[in-house]
Amino acid sequence: MEILIAGLGLIGGSAAKALARAGYVCDGYDLPAVVRQARAAGAIRAGAESFATYDVVLIALPPDAAMRLLDTETFKEGAVVADFCGVKGALEACVYASPRAYRYVGCHPMAGREVSGFANSLATLFDGASMIVCENERTDASAVRLLEGLYAQMGFASMPHCTAAYHDRKIAYTSQLAHIVSNAYVKSAAADGFAGFTGGSFQDMTRIAGVDEEVWSRLYMLDLPAAAEELAMLIAHLQEYLSALQAKDEPRLKALLREGRLRKEHLDREKKID
Amino acid sequence: MEILIAGLGLIGGSAAKALARAGYVCDGYDLPAVVRQARAAGAIRAGAESFATYDVVLIALPPDAAMRLLDTETFKEGAVVADFCGVKGALEACVYASPRAYRYVGCHPMAGREVSGFANSLATLFDGASMIVCENERTDASAVRLLEGLYAQMGFASMPHCTAAYHDRKIAYTSQLAHIVSNAYVKSAAADGFAGFTGGSFQDMTRIAGVDEEVWSRLYMLDLPAAAEELAMLIAHLQEYLSALQAKDEPRLKALLREGRLRKEHLDREKKID
Repeated sequence: MEILIAGLGLIGGSAAKALARAGYVCDGYDLPAVVRQARAAGAIRAGAESFATYDVVLIALPPDAAMRLLDTETFKEGAVVADFCGVKGALEACVYASPRAYRYVGCHPMAGREVSGFANSLATLFDGASMIVCENERTDASAVRLLEGLYAQMGFASMPHCTAAYHDRKIAYTSQLAHIVSNAYVKSAAADGFAGFTGGSFQDMTRIAGVDEEVWSRLYMLDLPAAAEELAMLIAHLQEYLSALQAKDEPRLKALLREGRLRKEHLDREKKID
Repeated sequence: MEILIAGLGLIGGSAAKALARAGYVCDGYDLPAVVRQARAAGAIRAGAESFATYDVVLIALPPDAAMRLLDTETFKEGAVVADFCGVKGALEACVYASPRAYRYVGCHPMAGREVSGFANSLATLFDGASMIVCENERTDASAVRLLEGLYAQMGFASMPHCTAAYHDRKIAYTSQLAHIVSNAYVKSAAADGFAGFTGGSFQDMTRIAGVDEEVWSRLYMLDLPAAAEELAMLIAHLQEYLSALQAKDEPRLKALLREGRLRKEHLDREKKID
């Protein structure tokens, strides 16, 4: 089975290293300097010029590059092709716009770091993480099974299946909204000279503030209107606390905080059951 | 030197254990069952009925209880009395409303856990953390030096000094705002059924969502208007992202994300210098 990993940044590089760790030999597709780096690290065997000879192609590129490739490259007949983009509806729309020789499965690894590039990739990045697998009536079941086998060997511990629409809605909330909030949080004038005035709360809230605006602005645009809806909902909730503060309405503020606490406890219980 | 710790919850219990670890013998003041628990754990020598015999009193109680105690209890003449509350202006106003026999120093340990009570206290909770020490023209320098010696032995690594007003403004941003955001974040309808759809971003964003509404609603009320101002500023920033999303204005969104990234990088540099 010939495997190609397209895009050898943080995610693709980690995929290559994880597969190498599991005994697989993969080729890589990226800029020459990155390919060189990945070869030197023993993550890939060689750089690829074309896609046509590979049985499995894992695409770990930003959405636009991934869509261009899925739309225009020549793949081997029946090849299993998965992308790891953070939006899935837009990818499916692109792939299903024409008949394809390859069998497409949209996936999304729930793992990352606040740094990027092959140099920061890790063989262990996916250990214990979740890989979301998007399915629909066109999805080939044997392609999914083959990928699940690879993902398990890469270290993934769970592989929830869902539709692209469900994925995009959830991710707008759990990831995209979080990045906007963190990015906005550091903009306070009070953020200067804060050393010594922070515990873990501030660190947690601002860890992911330094998003790559090129990548993320595209992700948001490709996941409209879910991203906008989640952000509007959060703003509306925050506005309730602000109104209570401005009115010095302590019982109301207490009720709002209680509501959040109960919700958090509910989510923690749900998580334990899952 | 006779030391009393008033309040043996997460913070006071940890203070008792940290001081015991450093070889100090302290008494404790709390409900009988908590005192019993702390004695059994070797964190304190005995429970105290009154404050009048202690050279040092560390108050780790919620703000209202701390203020009541500072206002009405009889302390030893010249005793060094510190409180660990998360607001400092309100505490100073209470203490300085009357002449006091004791020497007051408002402090705030920058450490915590998302659980509470003596059972969760740790001798190591303050190791490497920062203890904020509030000073003003009435502060007794020798009282501060004595406390700094104790704090160092409790494991604190830095003790920034500032005014109560400066503290309250910073904490409104780094801690109080973070707790409101986290508490509001979990209220989205998309939060249900999220297992497998989250990476570290969501965990970070929601870790502190389960605030104790009794304690926190008081803290917010005691730190108005700084808390309201910080929240209003965050909402205004978030509204900018929402407007860009709703207008499908990708360049504008990119500019907003870039601004946040640069700000985050600036803060990370500042932190390294401090």
